[in-house]
Amino acid sequence: MAEFDFIERIRRRVTDRFPVLHGIGDDAAVLSETGHPWLVTTDMLMEGTDFTFPETSPELAGRKSLAVNLSDIAAMAGIPTVAFVSIALPQHRGAAFADAFFSGLLSLAEEYEVLLAGGDTNTWQGPLVVNVTLLGHPCGKSPVLRSGAKAGDQIFVTGELGGSIAGHHLTFMPRVQEAQQLANLVDLNAMIDISDGLAADLHHILSASQVGAVIDAAKIPIRDAARTMADDRSPLQHALSDGEDFELLFTVSKSDAIKLQESWPEATRLTCIGEISADRGCLLRDENGNRQELPAWGWEHPL
Amino acid sequence: MAEFDFIERIRRRVTDRFPVLHGIGDDAAVLSETGHPWLVTTDMLMEGTDFTFPETSPELAGRKSLAVNLSDIAAMAGIPTVAFVSIALPQHRGAAFADAFFSGLLSLAEEYEVLLAGGDTNTWQGPLVVNVTLLGHPCGKSPVLRSGAKAGDQIFVTGELGGSIAGHHLTFMPRVQEAQQLANLVDLNAMIDISDGLAADLHHILSASQVGAVIDAAKIPIRDAARTMADDRSPLQHALSDGEDFELLFTVSKSDAIKLQESWPEATRLTCIGEISADRGCLLRDENGNRQELPAWGWEHPL
Repeated sequence: MAEFDFIERIRRRVTDRFPVLHGIGDDAAVLSETGHPWLVTTDMLMEGTDFTFPETSPELAGRKSLAVNLSDIAAMAGIPTVAFVSIALPQHRGAAFADAFFSGLLSLAEEYEVLLAGGDTNTWQGPLVVNVTLLGHPCGKSPVLRSGAKAGDQIFVTGELGGSIAGHHLTFMPRVQEAQQLANLVDLNAMIDISDGLAADLHHILSASQVGAVIDAAKIPIRDAARTMADDRSPLQHALSDGEDFELLFTVSKSDAIKLQESWPEATRLTCIGEISADRGCLLRDENGNRQELPAWGWEHPL
Repeated sequence: MAEFDFIERIRRRVTDRFPVLHGIGDDAAVLSETGHPWLVTTDMLMEGTDFTFPETSPELAGRKSLAVNLSDIAAMAGIPTVAFVSIALPQHRGAAFADAFFSGLLSLAEEYEVLLAGGDTNTWQGPLVVNVTLLGHPCGKSPVLRSGAKAGDQIFVTGELGGSIAGHHLTFMPRVQEAQQLANLVDLNAMIDISDGLAADLHHILSASQVGAVIDAAKIPIRDAARTMADDRSPLQHALSDGEDFELLFTVSKSDAIKLQESWPEATRLTCIGEISADRGCLLRDENGNRQELPAWGWEHPL
């Protein structure tokens, strides 16, 4: 069962209408009734898939369950506001585990000024499952979608990519502040957070915007952890396909790109990694100018 | 680990502030920024707890996952609008199961004019877990809370109670239309939907409203299924403690009670089962006028 096919089948049965301005298919939905749109995103995390115990502390599992949603709101250039947490707690882990989980979640909520306004608490014999629904507002007039990339746009990423499994996927700082700063400085034409992997999430932008891209392999910022993974994939392959980077991937006009490179005030690294093209297709260019197709699953070795 | 203790511990750490008008502790949260409040509720359902396969069809499991949330919005006298569905699908059940699940859910959504605007679709080796977050609006100026019951109020329930496990918990009609009709006809002082059981949910109203109640045992409308359960509990005990009735339990003034009894236009049965008292405590009165305490877990046999 391919996840994306299934979502596509659901999507065909559902038509956006008032108050849903943008429904299934972006990092968050956009609801608009009064000209003050709400952003809504939801993510379910499961023990064994998104974290394992005891390798992950319950505090970090709780933290991650909110952080991935904060990253989705950031990807819309939004300010997160209110969270709802549903959980199925494994009975055998007891009350101290549950307290630690919520402590990690609530600490991050306080840091990002997000209010917990409700939820659903259950215990069962199964593994831990948690769902967070996060609401927020666009920080500008309107949210930034995946669908606005234009030929000639420069493609940027925040931070560094690859090797997230070594720890970053639990401790990352959602790029809420950076997204807000970007929205203040320039016109963000398209944005997404990198959760499926650079190549996959770039493909999401290209498909939604009906454009193509050329990426310069040598420009991709690679996380140290991706250089020290003891496996048969290169650091670049890790950066292209690992996922869970929770960095922002966005496109801006050439003049806005210059503006960002000259006056970006945050400590978080910004890197221009390529350009949007009118020709469909996604290409990876090496330092000698040789191009090869960059598929959604990354480079060379499909998983 | 007692669920309510745990929720209480979380609640102590969280303070409602703008835009959260009412957070943890009612059937839905109330968010208000512009004078047009949003209601938000969320429920997680787990295989083995809320339904089992193959006893339950995937269509009815999908239906129930939305229906319980519709019932929560009804309990606030709200009109449901937009839903978000997160799911962990068991890999071994395959695509036809997933399609059937969503078909049941989307059919009920269409019936209640609710839009699916997003979600999170996952597969895993574990049992089915689904979380629905449902947004809506109060049908009147403001939502009906649990906390407004007043001494002298008459206590009503819709429909019949008990024995839900025989099938009603999967096929019930959420009382959205009835709640709207009630809100149009009278001032609803307090309302809740019966999910934990009549006694438990009555206690929730009493505790939130800081009042007591006297319930007439003979007036409680008992579902036929509660009369035919082959166990050692009486039909009345089933009606008091079974839960998952998803009927409305509400209180209105004496004059509004008369109005309802004279002019209730819906086919759904309305029954006055008792009265709110200024004295704290919850009493069950038999036909001879004898009173005994009615604890939150029902009558006589705590679970």
